[in-house]
Amino acid sequence: MNKATVNFIGTIQTSYKTVAECPGQARPANGVSKIVLDPEMLPALKGIEGKSCIQVLYWFDEADRSALQKVPRWSETNEKIGVFALRSPMRPNPIALSTVELLKVEENVLTVSALDCRDGTPLLDIKPYMDPP
Amino acid sequence: MNKATVNFIGTIQTSYKTVAECPGQARPANGVSKIVLDPEMLPALKGIEGKSCIQVLYWFDEADRSALQKVPRWSETNEKIGVFALRSPMRPNPIALSTVELLKVEENVLTVSALDCRDGTPLLDIKPYMDPP
Repeated sequence: MNKATVNFIGTIQTSYKTVAECPGQARPANGVSKIVLDPEMLPALKGIEGKSCIQVLYWFDEADRSALQKVPRWSETNEKIGVFALRSPMRPNPIALSTVELLKVEENVLTVSALDCRDGTPLLDIKPYMDPP
Repeated sequence: MNKATVNFIGTIQTSYKTVAECPGQARPANGVSKIVLDPEMLPALKGIEGKSCIQVLYWFDEADRSALQKVPRWSETNEKIGVFALRSPMRPNPIALSTVELLKVEENVLTVSALDCRDGTPLLDIKPYMDPP
């Protein structure tokens, strides 16, 4: 086995209708986003309301998965950098990861500090945040 | 589309030969692990040697993906908790995430502070660590 299947388990609602509008990172200053979990996943949220910070994993479904290097947006030299040294959506497995504040839990909808993805982005996973050791 | 394919792009070498031996989290006190990237991915590492800390995403290939709640190992009450409130391998998409120190880069092999997975675990992604905003 050299691959696996990930199932989309919800969607992320943001104010960005296209990838071009998306900011470079998730930032609380950009407001809030909503994570709408598929209703059958509701039991998996039990205990989440006690967490102030969560890690959200989602799928950059429009990303180019074939390129291994790119010139970062912020580059002044036009030098290409490896995608594993960047947090760009462009990577072999376009799994996005952001740490956000958990602001509200209502049934299967989580309100969090703003994520950085296009409205309708597929959700992969939610984990409680843990400080690096 | 309600699912996607992730491709394994390398393997993680640890001292844990079975899942039962694995510790609960990645901890520098447990020594070091190696990330062996598939050689064709080498260009994607360009620039990584400047990073002191990286986030590693990997695939818990033995995890039960069907359960939505479990009793945590540390529980004193036997109460079940939702898997999104836990960092257990048991979850709908068993994507593991650890932040580790990057200690050495030699060609396609990264030496990092100890990960928490079974020897031979498939690698999904590497990202430079960024503090939560």
